[in-house]
Amino acid sequence: MESLMNSAEEQQPSSPPGNSWSKQEEINKNETPKCVGGFVLVHAGAGYHSESKAKEYKHVCKRACQRAVDRLKAGALAAEAVAAALVELELYSAPASNACTHILLDDDSPFTNAGMGSNLNLSGEIECDASIMDGKSLHYGAVGAISGIKNPVLVANRLLSEAQKGKLSAGRIPPCFLVGRGAHDWAVGHGIPPCPSEKMATKFSLSAYKRNKRKMALAEKMDTGHNHAKKRRQSSETENGSGCLDTVGAVVVDSEGNVAAAVSSGGLAMKHPGRVGQAAHYGCGCWAENAFNNPYSTAVSTSGCGEHLIRTMLARECSAALQSEDAHKALLEAMQNKFISSPFLAGEDRVLGGVIVLRCCRCVESPPSQNIQGILVEFLWSHTTESMCVGYMSAQDSKAKTHISRLPPGTVPGQCLAIEGGVCRLSVAE
Amino acid sequence: MESLMNSAEEQQPSSPPGNSWSKQEEINKNETPKCVGGFVLVHAGAGYHSESKAKEYKHVCKRACQRAVDRLKAGALAAEAVAAALVELELYSAPASNACTHILLDDDSPFTNAGMGSNLNLSGEIECDASIMDGKSLHYGAVGAISGIKNPVLVANRLLSEAQKGKLSAGRIPPCFLVGRGAHDWAVGHGIPPCPSEKMATKFSLSAYKRNKRKMALAEKMDTGHNHAKKRRQSSETENGSGCLDTVGAVVVDSEGNVAAAVSSGGLAMKHPGRVGQAAHYGCGCWAENAFNNPYSTAVSTSGCGEHLIRTMLARECSAALQSEDAHKALLEAMQNKFISSPFLAGEDRVLGGVIVLRCCRCVESPPSQNIQGILVEFLWSHTTESMCVGYMSAQDSKAKTHISRLPPGTVPGQCLAIEGGVCRLSVAE
Repeated sequence: MESLMNSAEEQQPSSPPGNSWSKQEEINKNETPKCVGGFVLVHAGAGYHSESKAKEYKHVCKRACQRAVDRLKAGALAAEAVAAALVELELYSAPASNACTHILLDDDSPFTNAGMGSNLNLSGEIECDASIMDGKSLHYGAVGAISGIKNPVLVANRLLSEAQKGKLSAGRIPPCFLVGRGAHDWAVGHGIPPCPSEKMATKFSLSAYKRNKRKMALAEKMDTGHNHAKKRRQSSETENGSGCLDTVGAVVVDSEGNVAAAVSSGGLAMKHPGRVGQAAHYGCGCWAENAFNNPYSTAVSTSGCGEHLIRTMLARECSAALQSEDAHKALLEAMQNKFISSPFLAGEDRVLGGVIVLRCCRCVESPPSQNIQGILVEFLWSHTTESMCVGYMSAQDSKAKTHISRLPPGTVPGQCLAIEGGVCRLSVAE
Repeated sequence: MESLMNSAEEQQPSSPPGNSWSKQEEINKNETPKCVGGFVLVHAGAGYHSESKAKEYKHVCKRACQRAVDRLKAGALAAEAVAAALVELELYSAPASNACTHILLDDDSPFTNAGMGSNLNLSGEIECDASIMDGKSLHYGAVGAISGIKNPVLVANRLLSEAQKGKLSAGRIPPCFLVGRGAHDWAVGHGIPPCPSEKMATKFSLSAYKRNKRKMALAEKMDTGHNHAKKRRQSSETENGSGCLDTVGAVVVDSEGNVAAAVSSGGLAMKHPGRVGQAAHYGCGCWAENAFNNPYSTAVSTSGCGEHLIRTMLARECSAALQSEDAHKALLEAMQNKFISSPFLAGEDRVLGGVIVLRCCRCVESPPSQNIQGILVEFLWSHTTESMCVGYMSAQDSKAKTHISRLPPGTVPGQCLAIEGGVCRLSVAE
């Protein structure tokens, strides 16, 4: 097991946050302080992103960042902005003809596994998971195994906002997590339009389903032909197993310093109907918590093998770890000790997942006489999968930066990790 | 806010575990050491248990303890024993004619809200949540919003045991959480018999549904008649709101010192279809973790208002807290700081829930020359609801002890707590 840190970092393990990143990004550090709208970091999945499609993956992230920043500039709080980013990431999983007209990608080329164009389950249906958490109110909304809704994150977001309104009639407590048909009906009852099942799948997701069906049939035939009592096959993986774990997610801090996080996924290909993955699990898919009595506000979104992320409760673990002094070191240790080497995954040969995190705190800009407060945002991503595609943008930027992070050649996915990040200072006039 | 400790405890806040309980129970301390099968603690819900039905509630707990102990004596490990206790607790929610012949209770008198006879949802259907966790393997299985299955915990348990077998064909990862129709079909496909919907409801649950429907209609009429813009009604509660939160659960330690926990619930009355409560949420409904590198093995099961227990992740919080020296103090602080005063529930006027916990560690029996190892089991229950019904039994006991714990008259449910417990030493010949 090996961590992938560059030498500069290894030489400065306890250096202050601003100097401790392997790929340091100092954004707008020297610009004139002004009112700004915040910062967003998105991911288009921890899994495998081919070089040939790198441009498209980055484009997806860029659009999602832009959408969140547009909302932030319009005065939206973090939760609204993070939902906007997710909607964009979910839309890109659909073909242009079904989704939105501004998509520049090829028709029928889904680039994320969320909402329309998601992985199909064993029965050939699409069932999605999504959740959102608002660090200000600490409210949370989630949907699991929901079908026939184009943007599952919008249902999760609506559950969150309905719960914030207080009790229902007759003192009933509003739900924070709905699943299946009930979730679909609740969504439609709250004005979110249904999408016919036949429009949810794409040519791409349908042909992947057929390939996986053939692989499964072959694998089961081989099992039958050999030894029934033998340990189940660990190889002959489906397309998920080979790395296409492209759940999407985002973390946001707004100009008030509120954080929010969200995640959305079509789940594992060929999953059993009704299977709910980490994207709908509290503490596992996303986490956001304003500072309150802690030093830092934190927001986390995860991607990868759902069951691994659930059993390690990775989003919440990373959030808790990020309260220690050195964010980079904290995340590195969390990924190593609470994920790769977690006792909860002791029997697993490959522990596959990735996270994006941000943490922020108020700081005084120099010179202090100008009465300018700033927000120091530290952001990181880390993954044990072959690659992870991320994008980030502050409201001061003209466009998003994107990056496909990769494990170095020769390292073993699921046993090694990559970690990178940066720092951004948001200046706010008092 | 006030904790309910007796004077003996307040005088000895840091005394060793054996002396620190408000209601101390030293079980079999002076008996000749022999091979024993473990210990079980069950609950029939944190909510409201009327005096008039106290006998029946206690009987439910007694039977569940006996069932778990029978399994432990037969050599079962903790996970199997805890599932057996849950099956018994779930069965008691059903009328005798539908469930099992040994029930001594009145026909159509459900005493727990789990499995058959559970609360009905808004559509008049029963949808159940259940989960189980094995502290030895740290595996977990859960079902949410499942209909037409008499014992939801058996599905959760089967998910757990299937996951322990490793990957499925073609490298697919087995699910740990299934919901709705998919969960039902998976269960039936794995040999768990379906139960027709009309047999799941009882006269009791159907009449409660009708009463609640009337209350809701009245409350909504009043809302409409007054002011639409006003904050939603906080009163006129349904039968859940008034305290009938009778989720069931159990925690077990076996003779090897392995722990397990489980929980099962029909959920809130008049919940929206598809709503999943804490009983199916990882870290919220139950938690079990063998010691590994920690001082203690811990097991926790919760009951109460699902959304409160989810948002505070109470089971896992209590488990983590129990690693500190004084178990009673740790649980008291966890209930006060992580539940009643949790920032996650800042907007709630009444925080309703309860937990049963056990923790254990190996200890040397005196005299050490006899080469006898023992397991020290500390067990506690705490609740902010009006009452909580518990039962406990070691494999050395001839019958279970039961107790309905109540908040003292005049204290406010949801703002105060009760906490009680005991100690049990299990002696194991080497």
